[in-house]
Parts: sequence; structure tokens; C-alpha cells
Amino acid sequence: MKAVLARPLAAIALLLATPAFADALIDNVNGYTIGKGGEVERFTGLLIDGEGKVVRTLGHKDKRPEKLDFRMDGQGRTLVPGLIDAHGHVMGLGFNALQLDLSETRSLAEAQDKLRQWVRDNPGQRWVIGRGWNQERWGLGRFPTAADIDAAVADKPVWLIRIDGHAGVANSAALALAGIDGKTQAPAGGRIEMASGRPTGLFVDAATALMERAVPPPQPLERDLAFARAQQILIEDGITAVADMGTTADDWAVMRRAGDLGRLRVRIISYAHGIEPLIAIAGTGPTPWLYGGRLRMVGVKLYEDGALGSRGAWLKADYADAPGQRGLMLLNDAKLKNLGSRAAMDNFQVAIHAIGDAANAQALDAIEELSDTYKGDRRWRIEHAQIVDPADLPRFGRHGIIASMQPVHQTSDRLMAEARLGPARLAGAYAWASMRKAGATLAFGSDFPVESPDPFAGLAAATSREDPAGQPPGGWMPEQKLSPAEALAAFTRDAAYAGFAEDRIGSLEPGRYADFLLLDRDILAATPADIRATRVLETWIGGKRIWVRK
Amino acid sequence: MKAVLARPLAAIALLLATPAFADALIDNVNGYTIGKGGEVERFTGLLIDGEGKVVRTLGHKDKRPEKLDFRMDGQGRTLVPGLIDAHGHVMGLGFNALQLDLSETRSLAEAQDKLRQWVRDNPGQRWVIGRGWNQERWGLGRFPTAADIDAAVADKPVWLIRIDGHAGVANSAALALAGIDGKTQAPAGGRIEMASGRPTGLFVDAATALMERAVPPPQPLERDLAFARAQQILIEDGITAVADMGTTADDWAVMRRAGDLGRLRVRIISYAHGIEPLIAIAGTGPTPWLYGGRLRMVGVKLYEDGALGSRGAWLKADYADAPGQRGLMLLNDAKLKNLGSRAAMDNFQVAIHAIGDAANAQALDAIEELSDTYKGDRRWRIEHAQIVDPADLPRFGRHGIIASMQPVHQTSDRLMAEARLGPARLAGAYAWASMRKAGATLAFGSDFPVESPDPFAGLAAATSREDPAGQPPGGWMPEQKLSPAEALAAFTRDAAYAGFAEDRIGSLEPGRYADFLLLDRDILAATPADIRATRVLETWIGGKRIWVRK
Repeated sequence: MKAVLARPLAAIALLLATPAFADALIDNVNGYTIGKGGEVERFTGLLIDGEGKVVRTLGHKDKRPEKLDFRMDGQGRTLVPGLIDAHGHVMGLGFNALQLDLSETRSLAEAQDKLRQWVRDNPGQRWVIGRGWNQERWGLGRFPTAADIDAAVADKPVWLIRIDGHAGVANSAALALAGIDGKTQAPAGGRIEMASGRPTGLFVDAATALMERAVPPPQPLERDLAFARAQQILIEDGITAVADMGTTADDWAVMRRAGDLGRLRVRIISYAHGIEPLIAIAGTGPTPWLYGGRLRMVGVKLYEDGALGSRGAWLKADYADAPGQRGLMLLNDAKLKNLGSRAAMDNFQVAIHAIGDAANAQALDAIEELSDTYKGDRRWRIEHAQIVDPADLPRFGRHGIIASMQPVHQTSDRLMAEARLGPARLAGAYAWASMRKAGATLAFGSDFPVESPDPFAGLAAATSREDPAGQPPGGWMPEQKLSPAEALAAFTRDAAYAGFAEDRIGSLEPGRYADFLLLDRDILAATPADIRATRVLETWIGGKRIWVRK
Repeated sequence: MKAVLARPLAAIALLLATPAFADALIDNVNGYTIGKGGEVERFTGLLIDGEGKVVRTLGHKDKRPEKLDFRMDGQGRTLVPGLIDAHGHVMGLGFNALQLDLSETRSLAEAQDKLRQWVRDNPGQRWVIGRGWNQERWGLGRFPTAADIDAAVADKPVWLIRIDGHAGVANSAALALAGIDGKTQAPAGGRIEMASGRPTGLFVDAATALMERAVPPPQPLERDLAFARAQQILIEDGITAVADMGTTADDWAVMRRAGDLGRLRVRIISYAHGIEPLIAIAGTGPTPWLYGGRLRMVGVKLYEDGALGSRGAWLKADYADAPGQRGLMLLNDAKLKNLGSRAAMDNFQVAIHAIGDAANAQALDAIEELSDTYKGDRRWRIEHAQIVDPADLPRFGRHGIIASMQPVHQTSDRLMAEARLGPARLAGAYAWASMRKAGATLAFGSDFPVESPDPFAGLAAATSREDPAGQPPGGWMPEQKLSPAEALAAFTRDAAYAGFAEDRIGSLEPGRYADFLLLDRDILAATPADIRATRVLETWIGGKRIWVRK
């Protein structure tokens, strides 16, 4: 609304024949944006109109307009387009921020301590809901059990979700409330771990729903709070737009409430959590851009398999560390194609979660077949595209497929991936450079809250393939590293393209929204370790400064 | 958006010091609106600003502004505020318009002919869905059966809903598809009519859900079409705003799609279809007004009983024509109060459907108790308030209760009501004047599609208590007649007040939206029969002419 209210002044000014009028100039910056061909376009001034859009960028020799509503001296700081996370879970990020966070725990004992502390700090909560554990990081050599949790908290139900969201562990009180016992059958696509005929407390993939059903659903106020928290986290991390991968009807209602009340700040490109909410909400086609380019439902997220950590990723051959297991195929060929077809027939974009090489092959098969029927600019997306059979890599270059990948997954998963896959299957794993070479459009994200949404961690991983500790030195499979400009393109222009949003965001070109960041360093000139340490100083969305670091 | 875009010009004009500027004048009209005290306020000119709001009304002696963007000569025609239907079902109206309409049939044989014809005309339809039958009007002396329908259409499933929506009849093919047989149990609050241990085909109240579950749900395109049809019907009937009584999540999605695409024309005050969609959609409180005052979810509709025709209305004593039956209590005391409390705690308005005298007494009990906890401006609504124990009438004057009534129900139901109730219980039936006297706020509507949305039929019934054929001459219980101004107030100012919208609509006062009609006659000077024949010549919403009779 502010932008709209600003227009009368601009219109009057034009009438009064003032030449070269513009509203705001951010001057004296080390600015750059990625051009159409992937090249770095540099500028020192950014001119913004009263509607919060870029008028043009200015080189240091370009004359500045005389009449301005606002002028800011950037003091030589680096200015980049707002970063776009091409694959995140907005409500998940917010709920996590309101829940017990176990992602930093390095042992079961540390997690147990945190559990005890959280219960002391939150006496009013009926359930303890936590997230972020990783038995690999704990060095536990096995999955945690109900008994492990009972040892910390026995008098309240506890439900703790693994870092990848594909498994969870319940304590005995939670198992009892959910009515889970040795006779409970896991649903298709899921597994309830049993020992001696009794549940150990561990639930994998679709079976987690049995526990989540028992947890009281959040109230609208909690949802709205979670959303507000998520927006704040993203803004501080320099994320000005995100593809929300799996928007439920409840999530959508929260986003609309925020929009209706003028509280929507981050731009959200929404992919419905399956066909049902897609059709119920968007109906006969993608929604228009709502709230001044802040929200749009453009397509659907379909799940083809699970994740690697919980051995839910669907592989062509057995897991190296679990002979006889090949993961979970969540949709058969016909179902995947039917669902994709149902979406594509109404011009919805289709984004298929595929982590294992079998899942990726199946997604590619489906896209190839769907492309015969649904022509035009479809931008089929494969989410994660994590473990790909090298023989399948060239297929990504066809049909305009977008490989929506998360660089930090590579550094987080490295040791686990080596164990799960063995050396022979790593050639097509997290293969960003190969994807580019094959002609795929790379769109980068973080998969938050599975990983931190911090895009500079992603840029560092993408350019180094080293983890935060610098391991392995020189990078894991270093031939897959990207240049800083290539990585930035995948977090800006190409992430926008991946969501049919390149006409609005992803670059600082005339007519695009003035979504940008001021940074404390030049990420194109920095080492990967420096990139990782980048701090956002200011976040601007739609020509408005909405956050300044204190 | 058009209104917003028009602002710069207005702003510039002000800057250039043009005095007394306004955008549009509708002049030379016989205009009136209902004032705060219920008085008729007359004018001959209506001045509208660039945002589509009333600047002021002008008497014939008032000076007209010199500078205008638009001036129209009303040629002496009558101009009234847009009429508001305080109780309708928007999607129901639209779906009905797309379905087989049996509301005009005068015999079973005529209905059977229409069924055969519809099947010939709509070969692609999998199901025949119809609405509007009334065995009373057919003079059938019993409810229709599956065999009656099979005689017309046997090779396709047929499901025909009674005019009041509280009963339906299925043919044998539909019964088979729905899996209904002699062993099927009716759900609580419903009845499956059986004869010789087999279903006759008739379903009452909650039992209709068993059939409706078997009917394929409409696709988004059909929903959007239905909504567009409903809007068109309302606009042509002179309804510029409506309280949608029972908005489902799907209904809401349709309305939002229309709003998002700029296709929302009629203003909708939405009452969610129960607590679940209320909380899921609006969350922590009523939504703001959306789309320039076109849509708002303000509260919840709760159902206390069924309808009189199907003997679902809950009575204090037995039905006169069905000893032993007292109708259906759909919510017990505690449930009604719990649901009301859940809504009121977040400042949602509560509208309780109550038709029988027992249901009305229970609704009054609940409101009295809820009022102790939830203070302030609550505007508790009782929908229909049709059969009220005269001893309960004074209670309507307390706690600011709104009696949301439908005048045409009185003329449609008269003979049936006499049969159902006997003479002793009619004193508090359709008792508009008594309600006013008791201090209730009367808000009028049609309950479309149960009745036609035509508000002039409602105004005629309200002022005459005679049916379209003039029966009974002088009116049924004529002491309950209202004056034309009283009836108009209930269709304008008070209907707006009933939906917390009197600051925007319901009167043509400064700052209100310029929603108005041009009519072919003066309804305050007309006889009831003349009022009934009124034709809307033009419908204006938000200062824009959106429909003109050809």
C-alpha cells in the first residue's frame, strides 16, 4: 500500500514537467547482478521508483538524477540482489524456531540434557516437540529409541523429528497416547522399527504420520507466530524470496492472513503439498501474484522417495550399508504421471522430490512422457536431484528441466552418503557442475529447516565443497565446484526463473522489484571461508528497507 | 484497483486548487435511504468520489458542483441503496443455476417430464442433480420415492434435493452407488425413510450426507462458473451485498479466486460453515475487509435444528401433523455453548440457525449465557427465528440480538406451517412486527436458493403477508405486517448492521460505498403487488455501473 500511496506525488511531478524524476537512489555501492547470459553486471548506483521497482542501475560515470525523494550513500558497500531460496519450508522453519532445537547437539547425552532443560523452561506445554537430531552426528551408530528419551523425559509425551524430517523418535508416553504397539502396522511407504515384537520408538517416512496425528495441531495464533518468526529469520539471512515446497491448506491460510493484514514481507512462490490443496486453493490454474508480488501458488510438489539419512531415498541398487534395502518408492510410475498430468493440464508447474538414483530416473521418465503432452514453457523441476546415475545426467538437459539443489546438503551428507552409497555411485552425487554442463538450469536453496536457511553457507559450499571446518581440504569431488558467479546465479536469477518469477525478481534490472542486500564483504572477491562469514547489513524488499543489522 | 488508480488525478486536482471537486453526480433522481433512526431520508442528487464512495446526497435546492468527471441524469427515477440479503447461500444459488431446477414443478408428473428432458439435454453428465421439489406443492400427500424417480430416469443416478435443502430423494441407481440398503443406519440428526425394511429413497437432514458423499464433487471450474452465475443473478435482482450463511473452505477458495482475479462484484459477508473452516481460514479473528470491501469472514454459522417442511425443526411440543415427532436437535446445550464460545473468544460473530420454538429457546439460552462472558458489541444472530414461543419473544430484545428472518418463507410456508403447528403455536411464527416491538434488530433476506433471491418479493411479503396470488387477502396474521420503510430498513441499513458492515454499506451517507439501484417504480409509494413487480433498471456497486437492464 505504501508504494501505491506514493504514486500521486510521482504523477504530479511528471505533470509539472520535472525531468528525470525518480524516487530513490542508493549510491556509491559495489553493486552487481547476474545478467541474462550468466555474466556479472556491475554498477555503483541503483535507482528505484515510487512503486519499489528498479528504474535502472548506474555506472560510476553515469549522471545522477537531480531530483530525488531519497538518496543513500552506500559507502562503498557491496549490494547484491536479494537471495532466493529455491527450496524451503517456510512454516517448518517457523515451527522449528518455536520448538526444541536439537540440531546443534553432538551426542545423545547432550540431547537428553536439552530435553530436560526445555521441559523446565516450558512447563505449560502438553507435548515436547523437537527437531534436528542426527544419530550420525551423535556418533551413536544406531537410531535413538523410546528408552533413550524416557531416560530424560518420561512424564510427558515427547516426539523428536530427525534433521531431515524423514524419521522421528517417540518416548513411551507418546507411543501410548498414539496407541502404537507391537501390533501396529506401518502404512505404505513407511516403517515402524520393532525389536522383540515391540516398537523401539523410531518411525520412518510415512509412518511418522502415525505419531504426528497424535500431536495436538497448532492453533492459528501459533501458526501466525511461526510464520512471523520464519519471515524474520529469512530476512536477517538475506533471503527475500523463497519457493515454499509443499504448502498445505493451513499454510496457505496463514500466508493469506499475513498478506491480508499487510504482514507479508518475504516473497513466496508456493508449491502445494500435493494435488488436493493445489486444486482446492488455486483451482483452474496458478494464482495471480498477490499482495504486490508477495505470494503466488504456481504449482505442486510431489514426493517420489524419502531421504538418504533414513534410507528412504530410492536407489537402483541396494544400500551399501544395508544390503537388501533400496529405500522407498512413494509413487509408482502411473501414479506419478497421473498426478503430474492432473497438475500440468491446468498449467501448474510440477516439482518432483527425487533423492535416490532410481527416483531421479523415474522422475525423468515421467517428465519425458509428460512433455509429449504438455508443450510450451513448463519448467519441470526435480527437487534435490541428489543421487543421479551418471547415465541419467544428460537427460536433465532436455525438456528445460530445473535441477533444484541444496549445496549445503553435500557438505552435511558427505560421510553419510559415502557410507550409504559406496564409492561407485558417487560420480553423479551432488553433481552441480555436471548438471550445468548437461544443460540443466541450476536453482539453489537450503531445504530449510533441514539445513539453516543461511544462503552464504550455501554459496560457500557451492564454491568449495568444503564443510564449515574446511573438510575435506580442496573439496569433495572438487570438479563439481562452481564459480562464485555461477553459484550466485543459482541463488538469484535462476532461482527466480525456476519459479516463473524472473520478470519480477532475481536480478536488478529495470522493472524488477528492488529487492537487494547490503553486505559486509564482496562475495565475488572473497574466499569460500570468507563467503561463509558474510553478514547481511541491510535487507530491502520492494524498495523498502525492512531490516538493518544493529 | 480502478478506484486507486483514479486517485492521482483527484490529488492533482486538489493541488491545483480546484474548489468543490468531485468525480460523479447522479442527478435528478427520486432518491432515498434509511436514516439512523429508521426515518426515510430523501434526496435528488448523489455525489460520488473517485474511490466509489458517497461524498454526500443533495436536495433539489442544493447547489451542484461545477467540475465533475461524470454526470448522469436519472430522469426522475427512483434510486435506493443496494439491497442486502442478510441470509443466503451464494454457492448454492450458483450450483442450482447449473442444475436441474424443479422449483416451478406443480406435480410429480411434471417433475418426471423435466427429468427426462434434462437427461436428453445433458448427455455428458454422470449424475443428475436437481433441486427445488416440494411435495406440498405437488399435492402428493406423501414424500416422493426412488420408484417415482426410476419411472423417469433409471439408467443414471439421480439425486434431487427438496426446496428447503433439508431432505432429498435418490433413485435406485443412486442408492446402489451410495451403497444404501435396508441395513444402513442413519447418522445422528438424520433419518433414512424405510418401508418394508428397504429404503424408500428419501433422506432427511443429516442423512442426506450419505447421498451427497456419493455424488462426485464439483471441479474448480464448475465452482467458479457457479459463483459467477450466482453473482450475476444477485446483481440483476438488485442485491449488492449478501451474508453468506455457511461458507465452506471450498466456497472461500472460490471467493478468493474471484477476488484475486478482480471478478468479485457483489459484497460478501461470510459466516463459516462451522468452527473448523472458521479457524482454518480466519484464524485468530475476523478477516479484514478484502478487495475494496468486497469480502470479509466475520463469524460462524451454527445449526441448531432442521427445517419445518421436512419436520426437522425442533419444537417444544409434538408436530400437529405427526404426533410423537418433535424434530431434530442438532446440538445439545453444552455443544452449542462450547462452539459459540470458541468463536466468541476470538471476537467472531455467532449466527445460530433456529427454526423451531425449542431451537429458538435453546439459542436464546446460549446467547444469554455467552453474553455474560463475552461483553461488548457482539450482535448475536438467530437465523430464521421462525417459530418462536410468544413467551420467548421479549428475550430477543436483550443482548442486542439480531433476528435474521426471511419474509418470503412466511408466504411460502403458510399452509404447511398451519398443518405442522396447528393454530395455537402460530402467534410467534414469522412474527416480524412482534420482533421489532420486542427490540430485536430485524435483518431480512431470502435464504436463497431455498427461495428466489428477489428482494422485491421479500419486500412485498413483508408489507402484505400475502403470497404472489394475493392470498390470503389482507394478509396472514396482518398485525405482523411492516411498513415499506421498516421493510426497506431490514433489507438495507439493518442488514448491514447485522454483519458489522454499517460503516460501509446499507445507507447512502457520506463515506459509505456508492452501492445503489435505479428502479422502475417508487417502492415506498407502491402497493405490495406493485412492489413485487419492481424491476431493477441499473445496479451500481462502489460507484461503478455494473449492470443495466436491456
